Amino acid sequence: MPGVAQNCRVVLVRPRNPLNIGAAARAMANFGFRDLVVVAPHEPVWREARSAVGAAALLDSARAVPDLAEALADRTLVLGTTSGQRRSSAGTSIDLPEARGCIGPSDKVALLFGSEKTGLTNEHFSFCHLVVRIPTSPDCPSMNLAQAVAVCCYELAAARRTAGQPARTRPAAALGEVEELRAELQEVLGAAGYFAAGKRPSDALKLRRLLLRMQLSAPDVQALRGMVAQLRWKIGARP
Amino acid sequence: MPGVAQNCRVVLVRPRNPLNIGAAARAMANFGFRDLVVVAPHEPVWREARSAVGAAALLDSARAVPDLAEALADRTLVLGTTSGQRRSSAGTSIDLPEARGCIGPSDKVALLFGSEKTGLTNEHFSFCHLVVRIPTSPDCPSMNLAQAVAVCCYELAAARRTAGQPARTRPAAALGEVEELRAELQEVLGAAGYFAAGKRPSDALKLRRLLLRMQLSAPDVQALRGMVAQLRWKIGARP
Repeated sequence: MPGVAQNCRVVLVRPRNPLNIGAAARAMANFGFRDLVVVAPHEPVWREARSAVGAAALLDSARAVPDLAEALADRTLVLGTTSGQRRSSAGTSIDLPEARGCIGPSDKVALLFGSEKTGLTNEHFSFCHLVVRIPTSPDCPSMNLAQAVAVCCYELAAARRTAGQPARTRPAAALGEVEELRAELQEVLGAAGYFAAGKRPSDALKLRRLLLRMQLSAPDVQALRGMVAQLRWKIGARP
Repeated sequence: MPGVAQNCRVVLVRPRNPLNIGAAARAMANFGFRDLVVVAPHEPVWREARSAVGAAALLDSARAVPDLAEALADRTLVLGTTSGQRRSSAGTSIDLPEARGCIGPSDKVALLFGSEKTGLTNEHFSFCHLVVRIPTSPDCPSMNLAQAVAVCCYELAAARRTAGQPARTRPAAALGEVEELRAELQEVLGAAGYFAAGKRPSDALKLRRLLLRMQLSAPDVQALRGMVAQLRWKIGARP
């Protein structure tokens, strides 16, 4: 689904650490998010975050608003984030990997993060259509704020293939090419005394299976044939 | 797939910022990862990272090793990370959302991160079976190191309902075994005059990439080493 990042606002509720605001902004930019709103920041925190050297364009255009309702007024879907096993009383709770499936194509989304110390309160959750749980380990449930932003932005922006084999980047070798390599390799190994019991029909089978298991690309077959040719020359030249 | 976090080592190559090491460790702990290895850290950086107030148990048990090969020796699947649009020459490149489907149930995985400034080099990528791209925006491709660790750990640990990959039927070779094969093959090819221009550092890289692309099983590595040993005997016996 293209466009999630464009239609999604990240809302930080009263963050305490200016470095976290900057780091959250960078994580947003990494995944194509542009709309950052900070609710009721402490004035020195907000000033310091905005004056950071190299503050990205995103941070320059970020807005501070006095309360959460104002930050969310134009949104159609508000997702409150939490991590670990915590359940809130806010209503439906889903795991982050499922969140993307809940976003309609024309939704204007807000993704809400609480302060470093307390997370979102029940008051904050009351503004949320859904509570999105980042599935962290029970042994270490609490995430760094900017890392939580990074993980959520990644998940909402990522294009997933439902069933994915990695696309091959190199052309697969044709079987005939592999067979030529097999025959050449077999000859060289034979000349080197590798097949102790003399020639056996099973030698070819074993080599062929070995080479096919490698799922070689055409360029790699050529490279290997070059090596085998050099070895053949070396061995054959000194019979 | 339970167990990815338990069987996955995070490897940071020469990180420069002690705070990033601590933040990466926290992100790992959030998603159940426990095995952190830092390659060739600057001594003051490493000391400061380990002495941080509240350093988690994970950071206490983290190890520093002098070189990458040592960090990877017992791994069967090495994933090198990069972000943005960069393509390396290291071979097959996949997007992070697809990475989990490439991990077999018995794989010992290493997840590799380069330094904050340079990322992974081509030398580092030559140790990787797969290059995993974090799909960041072209406008802001470069991620904070610890945030990249957070996103990757989240993705690999997250329980998703996806169609599984066929299970590998043979045990994957550990990187240390493949490296031994690579060194032996390189020696034999050198003795046969394959490297026309004399020894070059890129020879090792090319051979390593070629062998890793084959995704060899442990028995197949043994079979190939037997062939190479025989060729070495044949060539070496008639100097």
